[in-house]
Amino acid sequence: MMPFNIVLFNDFETLDVMGPVEIIGQIPDLYELGLYSLDGGIIASSQKVRVDTAPFSAVKPSGVLLISGGFGARTLVNNEHFMHEIKRLSEQAEFVLTVCTGSALLAKTGLLNGKMATSYKFAFEWVCSNGAEVEWMKKARWTRDGKYYTSSGISAGMDMTLGFIRDMHGKELAQKISSRMEYIWNSDQENDPFAIA
Amino acid sequence: MMPFNIVLFNDFETLDVMGPVEIIGQIPDLYELGLYSLDGGIIASSQKVRVDTAPFSAVKPSGVLLISGGFGARTLVNNEHFMHEIKRLSEQAEFVLTVCTGSALLAKTGLLNGKMATSYKFAFEWVCSNGAEVEWMKKARWTRDGKYYTSSGISAGMDMTLGFIRDMHGKELAQKISSRMEYIWNSDQENDPFAIA
Repeated sequence: MMPFNIVLFNDFETLDVMGPVEIIGQIPDLYELGLYSLDGGIIASSQKVRVDTAPFSAVKPSGVLLISGGFGARTLVNNEHFMHEIKRLSEQAEFVLTVCTGSALLAKTGLLNGKMATSYKFAFEWVCSNGAEVEWMKKARWTRDGKYYTSSGISAGMDMTLGFIRDMHGKELAQKISSRMEYIWNSDQENDPFAIA
Repeated sequence: MMPFNIVLFNDFETLDVMGPVEIIGQIPDLYELGLYSLDGGIIASSQKVRVDTAPFSAVKPSGVLLISGGFGARTLVNNEHFMHEIKRLSEQAEFVLTVCTGSALLAKTGLLNGKMATSYKFAFEWVCSNGAEVEWMKKARWTRDGKYYTSSGISAGMDMTLGFIRDMHGKELAQKISSRMEYIWNSDQENDPFAIA
């Protein structure tokens, strides 16, 4: 069973985390979900959901890391201690997935340099400013480049997570999960209705 | 500002709650979100998300009530104290919205008798058994009958909540929110890809 570790912080965007959680939570025989924050404890989303988390120090050193986005990311890109931890966790993970402005956090570590990535189209300029050497895609529901998956805003994290499941375990499982969730999956990563010019 | 009170219980389905939270959380000038459970405190979803809640006794006696679904509902329909509270909260609310098997909880109170409703298609037979006098719709992304909105499974709660916003505040606001979430809204409540024969 592979750890699926999700990074939260105060003022994270609720659905960035909970969309992927819903999907991964459908296959507990394959993935062990864990919610983490820098020091652990209760973390509040921008929508005021208060969620219990474990500290980064308890993250299992393998498996998948998912970095959520949200307004909290705006200040955290300048927090050296937090960013050092994000880089450490990303380096040790087998796969790193980012949702929305979570891409900015990953970009800031330098690990996306020379790689394809996307992010939330409403915050695109700011996101790009955190990774001048990243090949930012203005039209992509999500991207994959090596071990790095990055998605567009908020809801796009669900489409990407199902895409990740498809890549890992086949199309049939991804479709079974989306059907069980009665979710209308946008399974084409190039189909981005919110692309910018 | 109208209270938007959400009912949680142990083994609730994560996205049943967090999809609507993401949507309503975009308009904090219109709605005050609150997460509630029978006795308050930490409540765990089937996907192991631990969320802090306030007790039912603290629910503001007006506004919107949203009842989530999930495996926990299977036993709660037989819990007299819980069901008495669900009936009380539903009666005092101006609008009641249910997601997924949350429809079974509302049906069990008798308040849906003679009314149109829908629910999670994978659990439809069981849901129907909790309300023999409800007009259950086998094909509906969501339904509205008077003050009662009911949605299909899990993800459908987001489409319904946007539909509720459209009914209350107009199509423009609903579209603005879905766009801000980069969410591909199924805005037609009769478009149900998961309908059963």
